[in-house]
Amino acid sequence: MDISLARLGEIQTNHGVVKTPIFMPPGTQATVKAVGPDDLEKIGLEILLVNALHLHLRPGEDIIEGMGGVHRFMAWERPILSDSGGFQAWSFNQRADLSRITEEGVEFASPLDGSKHFFTPEKAIEIEHKIGADIIMAFDECAPDNDDRDYIKKSMQRTHRWAERSLKRHQELSKQESCSDKKSPLIFGIIQGGTFSDLRKESAKFITNLPFNGVALGGETIGYNMPRTLEIIEELKSILPKDKPLYAMGLGASPSDIIEVVKRGVDMFDCVNPARIARHGGLYSGKFVITDRDISFESDFKDGILKIANSCFKDDKLPIDENCDCYSCRNFSRAYLRHLYLAQEPLYLRLATIHNLRFMIKLIHFLRDNIEINL
Amino acid sequence: MDISLARLGEIQTNHGVVKTPIFMPPGTQATVKAVGPDDLEKIGLEILLVNALHLHLRPGEDIIEGMGGVHRFMAWERPILSDSGGFQAWSFNQRADLSRITEEGVEFASPLDGSKHFFTPEKAIEIEHKIGADIIMAFDECAPDNDDRDYIKKSMQRTHRWAERSLKRHQELSKQESCSDKKSPLIFGIIQGGTFSDLRKESAKFITNLPFNGVALGGETIGYNMPRTLEIIEELKSILPKDKPLYAMGLGASPSDIIEVVKRGVDMFDCVNPARIARHGGLYSGKFVITDRDISFESDFKDGILKIANSCFKDDKLPIDENCDCYSCRNFSRAYLRHLYLAQEPLYLRLATIHNLRFMIKLIHFLRDNIEINL
Repeated sequence: MDISLARLGEIQTNHGVVKTPIFMPPGTQATVKAVGPDDLEKIGLEILLVNALHLHLRPGEDIIEGMGGVHRFMAWERPILSDSGGFQAWSFNQRADLSRITEEGVEFASPLDGSKHFFTPEKAIEIEHKIGADIIMAFDECAPDNDDRDYIKKSMQRTHRWAERSLKRHQELSKQESCSDKKSPLIFGIIQGGTFSDLRKESAKFITNLPFNGVALGGETIGYNMPRTLEIIEELKSILPKDKPLYAMGLGASPSDIIEVVKRGVDMFDCVNPARIARHGGLYSGKFVITDRDISFESDFKDGILKIANSCFKDDKLPIDENCDCYSCRNFSRAYLRHLYLAQEPLYLRLATIHNLRFMIKLIHFLRDNIEINL
Repeated sequence: MDISLARLGEIQTNHGVVKTPIFMPPGTQATVKAVGPDDLEKIGLEILLVNALHLHLRPGEDIIEGMGGVHRFMAWERPILSDSGGFQAWSFNQRADLSRITEEGVEFASPLDGSKHFFTPEKAIEIEHKIGADIIMAFDECAPDNDDRDYIKKSMQRTHRWAERSLKRHQELSKQESCSDKKSPLIFGIIQGGTFSDLRKESAKFITNLPFNGVALGGETIGYNMPRTLEIIEELKSILPKDKPLYAMGLGASPSDIIEVVKRGVDMFDCVNPARIARHGGLYSGKFVITDRDISFESDFKDGILKIANSCFKDDKLPIDENCDCYSCRNFSRAYLRHLYLAQEPLYLRLATIHNLRFMIKLIHFLRDNIEINL
């Protein structure tokens, strides 16, 4: 592995240290879909994501605060990062064909009941403080890649002003919290700029100059358009801070994507994909090998994904992955998982999710070990 | 509790001793819906049910046998009882408006693809031996309560002939198995006779005179029409064997039902209801109390069922049941479970099922303890 930029790090949070590189599965509704916190502990998960906008709509931040915070609410005592909901407001609006973004904030329709809501940077930060996440994200606009340069620029500049407003509200709340027992979270800023190199650089300079605890790469491109994502990361190399964590938002659809960005100095990433493809019958199987100081992912299956519905597995006694130590692989055959999948049994969702998440955690451990060896 | 008929027992099986009274949750598709074998072990489950007809249709008994039997297949090393499928053949036919029952067997349409299948007592017993259950059931006809006396009598007499055929095939297979490593199961016969006292008595005499290892009360009435079920059990008291387990099939929709039949000498019961109502938002909450040598079930909630969707639980910090020691009650609030239920999160199904099954197991322990004290 070319380790010239790959790095190891530690983030001190209110619920312990997060080692980096780290994969963070989304637990959007205050639950990582189909698995319990007991499963996540056994998987070796170190941190998960929740979403301020989703939790605002249901059950509401006041209820979560009243229950003692999101950790107590979902029985997860390790670190939690909350996304502010900039991406969701955009995504809901895409569906509802709405786009009411003003300098003040964004109006969006709830996917639950169609009701109208208005989010501002201040409101997002207040929700993130209320639910009690360990790392919170500034509120940004996630502009789609197919918008023209003028719009992307305008949107980016607004995101910068929103970053300042997010930070200001965070600082005010942190000051209040310092007078109480409540511990304040860390806050990360988000770089936008679409697919345009000069805008991305401008945004990176702006965001890194603000006193955020970490910086994130946001926008539709990141993780979605991997070739361009890798170029952007390389183009921003000299601007991005050496002493703060770098988070690529929504990236991690495949083990290979993670390997590529870790090699380029990205510390954190989240993606719903490993859990989602698991639920739809796609299970990771393969191994990581080091060749010529590079890391590759080898598998008998296309893209490293075993499709459990395939009839060739109907009497297959092997576990999903012979090298895996997860609960699912230690106890169940491909034949049984295929049976559960075809019978649409809820247990399939749990066993499949446990496996794919454990696979990502093992990849992270493998990367960390090899970065350490090469340091 | 009036313990004149309540009793304690032990059944030796190929996978250990089953103590009675015992509640057995159905794991129809070789999985107790929404929970894993790890959950079931923690719940303290001693035995579960599978269904020969369902497993024949998917994945097929040959696949299960090839995988090393149903225990290995589903990673459950404690006892398993298999139902023969008499009830399911009837139930599928009710839906499909088919009713092709002959002396030889029953034709039914698969609920998976509408394909036609023909089941005979011999075939059912062969499947039950192949999958490797510890206790197997004879093949019977489950006649509906609303059939006339002539049909119920005719059907009962055919069920008696099927019982003899089931037993004969079981004995042949057991003889073959004694020459191999394979251990043979126990076999139970099923009493029919609808709601008619004289037919039930005739059936009880016939079945108890055959060399079955246990006897079961079958038919639509049992568990479904509880007042009549209790009368039938009392009417058969002098006929039913003292030295063999008595199994009330499909009974156990509520804690009260179980208390009533245990008091009348029933040893085994199964019902999909505790797990099903859990999935639909109904969670047991209450306690068992002894008054005047009787046991009753006291609860703040109607029928002892807390309806988690109720808005009064939206910020309720209490567990489902303050006296419960299950994983769900030790870690999560009613508010969180309500949130998961409304968000239709799969984790809800698991946590709810864990609770209701643990509740039934605790009821069983409570009954056993009190029978022992009163012996």
